[in-house]
Amino acid sequence: MDFKVRIFDGFWNRYRRLVKQTMIPYQWDVLNDRADISIERERNDASIPNEKSHAMENFRIAAGRAQGKHYGWVFQDSDVYKWLEAVSYSLCYEWDDELKETADSVFDLISEAQEEDGYLNTYFSIMNPSGKYRRLVESHELYCAGHFIEAAAAYHQATGSSKALGTAIKLADHICRTFGTGEGQIRGVDGHEEIEIGLMRLYHLTGKREYMDKAAFFLKERGKDPGFFERQIREDGGDPVLTGLLSFPLKYFQVHRPVTEQDTAEGHAVRLVYMSTALADLAATSGDEALAETCRKIWSNIAGRRMYITGGIGSTVTGEAFTLDYDLPNDTMYCETCASIGLMFFARQMLRIESKAEYADVMERALYNTVIAGMALDGRHFFYVNPLEAVPGKSLNDPGKSHVKAVRPQWLGCACCPPNLARLIASLDRYIYTVKDDEVLVNLFIGSELKIEDGRRSLSIRQDSDYPKNPVITFDVENRAEPVAVKIRIPSWTDRYTLSVDGKETEADAEYGYVRADVSAGKHTISFELEIIPKRWYSNPKVSENIGKTAVTYGPFVYCAEGVDNGEDLHLLELPAHSFLDLKWDDELLGGVGVIEAEGIRLQEAEEDDGLYLSEGPRKAPRKIKLIPYYAWANRGVNEMRVWINEA
Amino acid sequence: MDFKVRIFDGFWNRYRRLVKQTMIPYQWDVLNDRADISIERERNDASIPNEKSHAMENFRIAAGRAQGKHYGWVFQDSDVYKWLEAVSYSLCYEWDDELKETADSVFDLISEAQEEDGYLNTYFSIMNPSGKYRRLVESHELYCAGHFIEAAAAYHQATGSSKALGTAIKLADHICRTFGTGEGQIRGVDGHEEIEIGLMRLYHLTGKREYMDKAAFFLKERGKDPGFFERQIREDGGDPVLTGLLSFPLKYFQVHRPVTEQDTAEGHAVRLVYMSTALADLAATSGDEALAETCRKIWSNIAGRRMYITGGIGSTVTGEAFTLDYDLPNDTMYCETCASIGLMFFARQMLRIESKAEYADVMERALYNTVIAGMALDGRHFFYVNPLEAVPGKSLNDPGKSHVKAVRPQWLGCACCPPNLARLIASLDRYIYTVKDDEVLVNLFIGSELKIEDGRRSLSIRQDSDYPKNPVITFDVENRAEPVAVKIRIPSWTDRYTLSVDGKETEADAEYGYVRADVSAGKHTISFELEIIPKRWYSNPKVSENIGKTAVTYGPFVYCAEGVDNGEDLHLLELPAHSFLDLKWDDELLGGVGVIEAEGIRLQEAEEDDGLYLSEGPRKAPRKIKLIPYYAWANRGVNEMRVWINEA
Repeated sequence: MDFKVRIFDGFWNRYRRLVKQTMIPYQWDVLNDRADISIERERNDASIPNEKSHAMENFRIAAGRAQGKHYGWVFQDSDVYKWLEAVSYSLCYEWDDELKETADSVFDLISEAQEEDGYLNTYFSIMNPSGKYRRLVESHELYCAGHFIEAAAAYHQATGSSKALGTAIKLADHICRTFGTGEGQIRGVDGHEEIEIGLMRLYHLTGKREYMDKAAFFLKERGKDPGFFERQIREDGGDPVLTGLLSFPLKYFQVHRPVTEQDTAEGHAVRLVYMSTALADLAATSGDEALAETCRKIWSNIAGRRMYITGGIGSTVTGEAFTLDYDLPNDTMYCETCASIGLMFFARQMLRIESKAEYADVMERALYNTVIAGMALDGRHFFYVNPLEAVPGKSLNDPGKSHVKAVRPQWLGCACCPPNLARLIASLDRYIYTVKDDEVLVNLFIGSELKIEDGRRSLSIRQDSDYPKNPVITFDVENRAEPVAVKIRIPSWTDRYTLSVDGKETEADAEYGYVRADVSAGKHTISFELEIIPKRWYSNPKVSENIGKTAVTYGPFVYCAEGVDNGEDLHLLELPAHSFLDLKWDDELLGGVGVIEAEGIRLQEAEEDDGLYLSEGPRKAPRKIKLIPYYAWANRGVNEMRVWINEA
Repeated sequence: MDFKVRIFDGFWNRYRRLVKQTMIPYQWDVLNDRADISIERERNDASIPNEKSHAMENFRIAAGRAQGKHYGWVFQDSDVYKWLEAVSYSLCYEWDDELKETADSVFDLISEAQEEDGYLNTYFSIMNPSGKYRRLVESHELYCAGHFIEAAAAYHQATGSSKALGTAIKLADHICRTFGTGEGQIRGVDGHEEIEIGLMRLYHLTGKREYMDKAAFFLKERGKDPGFFERQIREDGGDPVLTGLLSFPLKYFQVHRPVTEQDTAEGHAVRLVYMSTALADLAATSGDEALAETCRKIWSNIAGRRMYITGGIGSTVTGEAFTLDYDLPNDTMYCETCASIGLMFFARQMLRIESKAEYADVMERALYNTVIAGMALDGRHFFYVNPLEAVPGKSLNDPGKSHVKAVRPQWLGCACCPPNLARLIASLDRYIYTVKDDEVLVNLFIGSELKIEDGRRSLSIRQDSDYPKNPVITFDVENRAEPVAVKIRIPSWTDRYTLSVDGKETEADAEYGYVRADVSAGKHTISFELEIIPKRWYSNPKVSENIGKTAVTYGPFVYCAEGVDNGEDLHLLELPAHSFLDLKWDDELLGGVGVIEAEGIRLQEAEEDDGLYLSEGPRKAPRKIKLIPYYAWANRGVNEMRVWINEA
């Protein structure tokens, strides 16, 4: 299916310019260890390497251009791959000869670092050549390979580079030869899913069936032989390349049972959504209904029971993992930026399986909240963990909250999130629409132009939007061929909308959360108007942490209170249920945000020597409450933040 | 000062009989690995030894009576010592020839395991003879020694055994020779305080000044040389005897700064209260006002900012430690049984420094709640961690709550708590009164008889009490010598009381929380009547976890809701502020408890497919709420528990 999307949305173009002009050069400096920054450990764990990135130097050493040892995580290569993928996407919306030249040189270097047989991994090439593929539970070799294949495919699509694609195919073919159920092949999987995404992508690009089959092998082998990891480590007998990983339970790796028998989201959150992304891709591509059903079960477990209102996932730092249904603590959770990015990947593939707006709803929830909260407005500071409640003193002095940082570090010991965020934003055009044989889904309200040219269709849709600031979204459709169904998502947070086609209001029923406009040949204007007002939300009562609390949203944005606006000790605030939520746009504040103010209450502190336990509850006093969008928090120095606010 | 206390209180005699008849024989079987029990790890940590106790076998091996290796923690010896100490106290209230014979044989064995020079520690004697005193940060050698000295002193006091005392003196003298500031002496301290308590006790028993001086050395050396631990480990170069300990921050060991500069309660909670106990003992004994002032600062930091309403301390599992002021999470805390026992030790010594009821208030709070909650009513199951909120599913599936057990295990990998509880209950007579030169403090309302016979005084006080069931406590005083001041504690939870002496109401003012009766020679009856009613409590608003919540007490007992009485999902309960708290005694339930019932509310659950985030808060329905005393929870199978209940 051939279609192109160009974004010209004000809000998102700022982010995409930030990727191109700031994040990509900044991250390039970091990967080359020439940025003057301090690298923070993502939590109190002395084993986290944080002296430098060394990621590019690892490739130089593996390629024989430099001498030395590998430094960093065993998966450090993936930082470079994700950077390359971001570069590739950025070239599609802002060409840059110099950047292309740099990227070419990196692909050249990687190709030099690749071994004769196609194997590619700087850690094992440099440090442990005899240990290749022998410690898959911890080695991340296939994980890194998947990221390289994604980067090379994206680069090939952006620039036509045959060097990048050639290296990827050589690597993929090596993996296809090495793994499988045949004689002499390794019948096992990587501890961290990603190769499956890469192979599916290479299949979509090349049409070579073997890549999809091998992705299916890795997916379906998962959990069939739960003892594989331990057995392999025992047989290898060498030193760990990532200490402690084997002590995690099997579900950490999603190998506790065969994939098709997994019906809840378990284990390491990023691994789970990466696995699910590939599974949904395979299901959509192959039409395998059993796989699709597995995807639906995992999806509904996440979206219905294990997802924060911000689209964050992963309720515990231990294993960066899911815990149990309705367990959503606000101050100890993980909510890794990468996990919400992966949730968007998963949603995008689910939309290929079926045209249900619930997937796009979650995609939007993750995107507008946790995903972009992962980065400071300057594009040079990043969160790994995205809390719903942060108290700087507790992060410093309660070891159980050492991972909950109150300001974004310049870089992280495990730097998975920053380049992941760069590639997500740079490829945002891939999420706005889902183009199917028989319909076009409008998932996100982002000013953009979609052009479809295939044998049957010749169509352009120009979406004009200042969403969510302006409730009216206009679609100018030029259809040069047969009639087309355009289905526009009705966000789950409203049931008030009007749809007009060529000035005439239609009363189309919603189909799984999309309202449908059938567009005949010619030029047409679709106008979609939503009721967008500040709203209060309550958690399902099963979520014990949020009883008596309310969260405020405006359109896709979840709001939060910060100490800088409301004074510290945000737990003393009360937002009465009847209090009017007054939204005003402030174009100067935090790059331009809608600020919500309300008459609230602040509980009064006890006297100094009143002691710890009192026979009366606190007195109350009126206090204006000011809320800002969650994504923009922690851009004004160290201070408290809270999403779920006590209701009076 | 010569005084004796005999307890005949109904409530406490049940516990003391349980110690003598159940705990002591049960624990003896466990220590000898002949109990048919399962030993649980106290949290998800594969390094915790839980195959067996092996504590007695370690001594047999060290004594040369058996062959084999040491098993268990490096401090496994202390389980035996604390058991011996409990035995000693039990013999004072219930003599038992057979038990005495057993204990004699254990002291014989220990004396055989002791080395020629006085050194005593089975781990190092068996496993690492050249490593003695070379890894003090982790070795617990002096910790174990302190426990042995305590046990031997108690045994000597109970039985007159010179064998026990002789072994202790030989050990203490060895330590006195080995440690100090002199030429060739080790100038350093143990990672876990306890030797200081033991040496002070030996000083009180023998009057030998050197022991107090050495206790003072260990206390005052603490934190003076923060690099000592790391340097010693580096110099030794051997393998760890307790992995990971050195990675904890200095404050974990209370060596982050000199002791007299410590003004907050930091680090491992048990270590901190053991240190403070010895410090207060030294201050009270020596009259050192600077040390007393340090004790007051640490005390008020605990009692005013870092103590749970149940008398639990230690807000985090990581390092079983204090965190920061007002940080009192109810579901991830530690609140180790041993820590609250240690808090009682500390309080008892503070009462020697000054006659302020605040110390006895905390002593009572810890005793009636966390301390006895540490044991099931059957005397054979024990908590290490005493949560204020337990949800069995979360304990199972949230790794951050793996330490929060919903039922008491039969034994624990680290078995510090069960014998500590045995020795505390068996020595409870030591806590009821503080006998000073010029006054007698009545700290606890426990039916008992105090007899004082010294040169100056000849006095008996018989306290008749069915506290807190009956609000009247009667003291029959027979004073055969000069007038005596008897000061009775006014519990901090009431300001309504009446004091009558010989039938005549007095209007004595309270002095630091004690009301004073001056008793002349002859027989007198003091009647003390308290207002004891169910009461609601609120946390200081600085405690973010308890905003909008209330806790209920009756007298010294904190109450809690259990799932078995109220249905699961206790977070759905609301106890309105105006609702009458109706107390009724149920002599059949849980060994006899006062049950509190109130008209409450239960939030209604959402419909199955309502989703995770809702635009309306939950509906409410009336629901009777039933509360039981906290100490008695988890005696009716796996179910939820909650102390702080939402207020409507």
